Amino acid sequence: MSERNKEILVSFIESVWNNGDIHAVNAFLADTYTIYHDPGDPWDKQTLSIDGFKERVRISRAPFPDQNFSIQTLVAEGDLVSMTWLWKGTHTEEILGFEASDKPIEMSGVTLYFFENDRISGHWQVADRLSVYQQLTGNQNQADA
Amino acid sequence: MSERNKEILVSFIESVWNNGDIHAVNAFLADTYTIYHDPGDPWDKQTLSIDGFKERVRISRAPFPDQNFSIQTLVAEGDLVSMTWLWKGTHTEEILGFEASDKPIEMSGVTLYFFENDRISGHWQVADRLSVYQQLTGNQNQADA
Repeated sequence: MSERNKEILVSFIESVWNNGDIHAVNAFLADTYTIYHDPGDPWDKQTLSIDGFKERVRISRAPFPDQNFSIQTLVAEGDLVSMTWLWKGTHTEEILGFEASDKPIEMSGVTLYFFENDRISGHWQVADRLSVYQQLTGNQNQADA
Repeated sequence: MSERNKEILVSFIESVWNNGDIHAVNAFLADTYTIYHDPGDPWDKQTLSIDGFKERVRISRAPFPDQNFSIQTLVAEGDLVSMTWLWKGTHTEEILGFEASDKPIEMSGVTLYFFENDRISGHWQVADRLSVYQQLTGNQNQADA
């Protein structure tokens, strides 16, 4: 089961998050998707329907349409898969008050994914949003906060 | 092996990071400990000796002597254990230019630990340092960066 969940997750990240194939969400998600913990994410603590999740993907990808997650390591046990990842994207649309800059932006994070019967039903995640903030503002002085 | 690694990790977090028992490091660490990825950590990308790791614990704990990691979920496979965690501590000593404030500070993160023969040999981690920065400065406006 764990190996199968890993394969499903790799396919989900590639189709939905890297390629922006919104329709593919139907093939991967459980009936609801809960964001248990994701500080700084606008949907933190929410439980989304499949349509709600699709909207989240659209809105999240819009400022960085060429965005790419590079999976580093997967650890699976039972219904859980933990994924370390690196991310990059070009900032080509406004995000939260930061006008499009065409800057290449990098981020990293670790996400624990929850599965139910071969479907992804939620996550618990921390992303390095301080680095993103520093890259958007050009201010490196807060690196050690 | 995976269950044993989880038990070792729980004991390590409690003894070394929560209780500040520096001597206990000897019982848990491999000969070297590599910080593969930990953006914002002063030791990011370094390989530490056991003495170097002890110094990291001392320096890291000093501003928050009552600090406590609360382990949320452990996922283990082979030589790897992934840990989601919540952290809190009272800011009672200077840290990186922020004078002691006696504020309660909260943080969260996810850490992938690497094991070798029942010893911990490194980690790949992302912590929510943006939230910490906001709490230290009292500025919440960067929450969505």
